[in-house]
Parts: sequence; C-alpha cells; structure tokens
Amino acid sequence: MSIREELISQAAAAKKAARIMAKADSDLKNQALNLIADKLMERQQEIIEINKQDMKAARQNEIGKALLDRLKLTPARISSMAAGLREVAGQADPIGEVPEMWKRPNGLQIGKIRVPLGVIGIIYEARPNVTVDVAGLCLKSGNTVILRGGSNAFKSNQILANIIQSGLNQAGLPEECVQLIQTTDRKAVEILFTLNDYLDVLIPRGGAGLIQRVVNESKIPVIETGVGNCHVYVNQAADLAKAKKIVFNAKYSRPSVCNSAETLLVDQAVAAKFLPEIANIFKKHQVELRGCELSRKIVPDLHAATAADYATEFLDYIMAVKVVEDYQAAVDHIYQYGTGHSEAIITENYTTARAFLADIDAAAVYVNASTRFTDGGQFGLGAETGISTQKLHARGPMGLKELTTTKYIIMGDGQIRE
Amino acid sequence: MSIREELISQAAAAKKAARIMAKADSDLKNQALNLIADKLMERQQEIIEINKQDMKAARQNEIGKALLDRLKLTPARISSMAAGLREVAGQADPIGEVPEMWKRPNGLQIGKIRVPLGVIGIIYEARPNVTVDVAGLCLKSGNTVILRGGSNAFKSNQILANIIQSGLNQAGLPEECVQLIQTTDRKAVEILFTLNDYLDVLIPRGGAGLIQRVVNESKIPVIETGVGNCHVYVNQAADLAKAKKIVFNAKYSRPSVCNSAETLLVDQAVAAKFLPEIANIFKKHQVELRGCELSRKIVPDLHAATAADYATEFLDYIMAVKVVEDYQAAVDHIYQYGTGHSEAIITENYTTARAFLADIDAAAVYVNASTRFTDGGQFGLGAETGISTQKLHARGPMGLKELTTTKYIIMGDGQIRE
Repeated sequence: MSIREELISQAAAAKKAARIMAKADSDLKNQALNLIADKLMERQQEIIEINKQDMKAARQNEIGKALLDRLKLTPARISSMAAGLREVAGQADPIGEVPEMWKRPNGLQIGKIRVPLGVIGIIYEARPNVTVDVAGLCLKSGNTVILRGGSNAFKSNQILANIIQSGLNQAGLPEECVQLIQTTDRKAVEILFTLNDYLDVLIPRGGAGLIQRVVNESKIPVIETGVGNCHVYVNQAADLAKAKKIVFNAKYSRPSVCNSAETLLVDQAVAAKFLPEIANIFKKHQVELRGCELSRKIVPDLHAATAADYATEFLDYIMAVKVVEDYQAAVDHIYQYGTGHSEAIITENYTTARAFLADIDAAAVYVNASTRFTDGGQFGLGAETGISTQKLHARGPMGLKELTTTKYIIMGDGQIRE
Repeated sequence: MSIREELISQAAAAKKAARIMAKADSDLKNQALNLIADKLMERQQEIIEINKQDMKAARQNEIGKALLDRLKLTPARISSMAAGLREVAGQADPIGEVPEMWKRPNGLQIGKIRVPLGVIGIIYEARPNVTVDVAGLCLKSGNTVILRGGSNAFKSNQILANIIQSGLNQAGLPEECVQLIQTTDRKAVEILFTLNDYLDVLIPRGGAGLIQRVVNESKIPVIETGVGNCHVYVNQAADLAKAKKIVFNAKYSRPSVCNSAETLLVDQAVAAKFLPEIANIFKKHQVELRGCELSRKIVPDLHAATAADYATEFLDYIMAVKVVEDYQAAVDHIYQYGTGHSEAIITENYTTARAFLADIDAAAVYVNASTRFTDGGQFGLGAETGISTQKLHARGPMGLKELTTTKYIIMGDGQIRE
C-alpha cells in the first residue's frame, strides 16, 4: 500500500468508528479510560525500555537538551499520564448536553444538542505524553483521532498507541478510535492535509513554523494553537510590589511554555523607580533583559533590544523591555506585536483596568495576575488539548467542550412552512 | 495601484476600523442601521435606475431567469431591505455579554466575554440584498466587512455600499466598516484568499463550486454554508397524512433554496400505500419524481433514478425517491448522500424518533416537521448570514451571535502561579 492508500484506509476506519463513538455511553468511555490507565502502569517497564531506544536515537540525531527532556518517559511521567486519564474519566461527559431549547409560536420545539466533532487530526512534536493526553480527551468527547507525533518519539508513540487500542478493545469500543500514523515519512503530513472528506478538524501543536504550514496547506479546518508573544504592562498606577512579583513569575516560572511573558512594558512615569528593581531581580536569576533606549538610560547594563526582539517568542530566560509613553502606547505595542495569546496589565486604577480588558484582543486578558495561568487546569476546565489563538470555534485553553460541536434538533407534530 | 495593493489597503483599513467598531456603543450602531434604512428609502428611485443598468447588462450576458430575478431590485425589495436593517437595530447587541464567569480557589475571577470576530470577508453571488443584509449584521455585531458580490450586480452593489457608508459616516462610525471590492476582476478573489493577516474569517455564500473553491484555496479560516442535499424519510410508523403534507411542503414550497428536500426515502412496509398517493400529488403539481427500481414497481410512471440523482441538490421541481428496507437502511442512505444540512423523519414511534435525532449527523435534524424551517428567522434567531454546514464554530443558521467570538478576562489581585 502507498502512504496515501494507507492514510485513507486509516481515515476511513476512523470515520466509521466515529459513528459508534458518537453514541457510546459515558460508562463505556470511562471504563476504557481507566483500563488504559491500568495498562500504562502495568507495562511501565516495557514503555521505558522502548522510550530509551527513542532517546538513544535522538541523542545520535543531536537533538537539543530541552527536546530530549520532553521526549523522556520516567515512572513518574507515566504515572502522571495514567492519573490524567483517570481525571478525564471523572469529568462530566459533554456529549448529549442540551445547552438551549425553546418553543416557537407554531409549536416547534427547537434545541441545540452537544455532539462530537467527528474525526480529529493532531500533529505534534516529539512529546509522547501528548499521545496519551489527547487520546483520552478525544475518547471522552466521543471523537476519533489520527495522531501524527514527532519522528523522534515514534517507537514510544507506537507502544502507547498499542496500549490505548488494547484498552479500547477490552472495553468493547472500536480500536480505530485512536490511530497513530504508521510512518515517519514527511509526505504523510502533506497527504493528511488533503483528507477533508474524512477529517473534521486538524489541530497542530508545536512551534510557529509547524502551525503556519498547517494553516497554509490544510484543506481541513484548522484550530491554531499556542504561539504566545505575551506582554506584562506595568501601568503608572501599578502597585509596584505586585508588579515585581507578577513580572518575575510570568517570565521566570517556566520560560519554555507559550503563556510565559516575553516583553515587559513599563509606563515612563514609573520606569525610573520600577526598572532598576526588576532588573536587579532578573540579574540575580540570570535572566537577560533587552531594553529600548529609554530603559537603557535608566538601567545602563541592559542589552539593546531590536525591533525583532519585540516580535520574538523567546521561550527562554530572555525578556524584552520597553518604556512606553502612556496607556495608549502600551495598547498599541501589544496590538502590533501580540499574538493574541495572553496579555496582562498591572494597575490599581479602575478605569484603566476596565479599558485594558476591553481594548486588548487576545484569548486571555489579565488584570493584576500572571499570564502563566492561561491553562485548562488553572482555569478549572480540566485537561486541555492546547490553547487556541484563533477566533473561530475555540479561543484560549481547549477542554472537552471545545472538542465538540452542536446540532439543532427540531421536534414537531406535522408543522409545515407557509 | 495594482489589485493586490488596493485590496491590502482596503483590508488594512477594515482592520483599523475593527478596533473602533469593537468598542462602539450599541446606540451608535443602531443609529447607523436606522440611518442606512432611511437613506435606502429616500434613494429608492436612484437605486432602481442603477439596478436596471445591471439587469440590462445581465440580459445581454444571457443570465438565466432565476438569477435575473435574484438580481432585480423593486420598491418592495428595497423596503424589505430597510425593514431588515431596522429589525437588526432592534435586536439585542451580542457584544459585551458575559455568558460565564466563575471564581477559582486562588481568588482569580475568570469570565468569558463576547467580542466581535474582527474583519469578515463575504463572497456571494449577484444578489444585491445580501450586500445590505450582511452589512447590517456585521455592523451590529461590531465587525467590519469586505464584500465581494457577483459581477452582474456590481453597479447595484456600489450604490448600496455608498449608501451604507454615508449612513456610517453620519452616525460618526468609520465608513471603512463596510467596503466593497472595487473591481470585478476574478483575480481579486484569489488575492483575498491570501489576506489572513487582515481577515479573521471568510464566508462564501453561493453554489457548491464557489464554496469548494474557497475551502480549498483560502488561507483565511472559512465557514462553509449552504449546500443542502436534504432528505425526508417516511418511517413505517409514520402518520401518512402528516407525511404527505410534510414531504410536499419540503419539496414544493420553495425548491430553489438549500433547506428544500431533494430525496424522499420510504420504508418498504408503507411504500405500496404511501408512494401512489404522494406521486399523484406531485404529478398534479408537475414535480418530476425519479425513483429506484422498487418504487417504479409500485408507481410505474416514475422516471428511473441514477446513483447521481441521490447525490444531487436539484434546487428544482425534481425529487429522487428510494424505497428502503428499514430504519437502518434509511440512516445509512442519509450518511452516504447527505451534506449535513437538514434531515427529517416522519414517525409516530417514540424510540425510532429518538434514535433518528441521535443517529443523524446534520446541522438540523427534524421529527415530524418540514426541513424548510432551517432558517434564522424561523428558528427565532432574527436575520441570518447563511447556514453553516460545517462543524467548527457555527452549525446551522448563523445569526448575530455566530459572528462573534469570546475572550477570557481574568481579574486578580496579585496572583502568581506556583
């Protein structure tokens, strides 16, 4: 079979399985989730042995340290994957919910009922935990999923997918509900983009390059995730103690993730007081600040920022700094450079806070809190499939509900249209 | 200026205006809608004169009768456009609504607030009323819009867009809120597809060919609308009197629209009784039935249906007929040929009715009512931008709310993430 034939055969099987999954009872789905969790724990040693093979090959491919860390599976990480599945099993089933129903003057009863999207494609990097996390969310929300993980994690993903399928099987659900693309050939992704007769949505998880490619080439509707060039803006009316705590947390607590802050904006009215203090803290923690001309007049040992720095998602211990003239200049800077992910203002001024919440067009807009909270778990949505930075369908952290759609159901007793 | 430069300049102006529109008060938006309605009525005669020029050219281009009818503007149609705008002005403003807000254990207050999508592109056929309808909905929902109407309606659209802009202007809103693409060159559409830095969504309204082209080529997220290969299925437990009324209405009341039925499915248990009666009614009204072999044994003078007939959206006084073995065969036929628009079952059996509502994956699933109700007005949503047949973002008739998205707003008092 050619790659194309193989992919079509997988996609057709996923579409067929989707009809069964759409009707599967919550009990059955939860049973499958718990069975998979059990099996992950039972086969922990085997998973780690196979993951070691991936790790060895990745080292030979001279993969960077951060990527190697993401690829690695440990007993603790496997336990955490299993716990995640059990948590999803414990969440309410979104399918079948009727969020609205009303009656028309002619007696028609019209309602919206929540149903699965159908077949979901996920393209992601070499993080084997995504295989299990995403499979669990898709299963619970009654969808089927085609997974395309990074080639460095191929063997790890294969054993994880096998374990998932064996759990589905044992629960009496179709194992085609979760399928891994069985080749690391890059052509497979191109072919996947064209399978809009089978797939209902494609979700790329990964770097900006991957996401742009999917958006440009896919014929399947896409949900963009994750690129976060996030700002913290210290307004002139800020409580500077809060500002220090929040700016440091937004940058330093985990720089490699999309909700970490990349640029600090400071009103010039408070720059002379605030910048030396925060620069000092960051210096102690070896965070490199790259500042504008004004900020370097205040803190001379900052590196100079280029325009490109303001457009960069560093994902590292680096932060761009800009002193802005006033509120409007800060909002305009965010409008120009922001990626619509998470933006925060630090202010005690009521009117300024309200204005910021209204003016900023992003998935998550904060007053006096760290951007690091943009996360399904932190928002109280449970697990997440990713963080949407587009406006259609889902915006911000995507939980179970974001993997569903609705249909209208209309109940009559013979109504016809005049 | 090249077409590309001109389009980018329009799109950039729309994006700029979108920042103002997102914050515009309802009062101002309603005032603009009412002003535009006034101006349409005042300049009725002028509009009709210009529309006559389009009609004349269209006749020379040998445009079909149905299309000519859609292109034509009359005093009654202009009044109806104006009334539509006033109705939209009277509807609740979706922008600023907070559908959910909750508090987290750490004190963060998290809510979703409804905001405009931003810049919307609409590609449609030579129906000048769409220009006004869509502009009104986009304006009310705080969006800006780039309109690309069919070339046969170009002059009519120009004067309508001028009137709309003059109303916006007088209300103190940016006239770039509603812009018509100022060329009939087909290249403009191709260029539009690439402007994903400016446009947030593209909505094609028209035939299957147009929609497929937009889906395949656009880099901007698309909402597919309208192709409706709809079925009415007469179950063995149907009240045949209701069935007759509904089948006739679903086909005959307005065959040219997407929610009209194209195929009649009849359980074999009731076919011998039902088919001759309905065939007789349709014969009297000159509707051509194209039947399967079994149905032609019962009503010998039916035309023979081909497989292609079951896949065709006739949009005409033609209906395909198929006798099915049982409920499952009917559901499987709809799964194979349906376009996910509107599907109806006629049955008095409670369990069968419930099963159909669950089994059918379409925007609107009916029990004992005509598919012709799939319409924003009929559902009680007010005016509509089109009927989405995709699963992402919006499904079924799209009213004002479907032209919006949400963003998270998070209010804290210094929270940081551990």
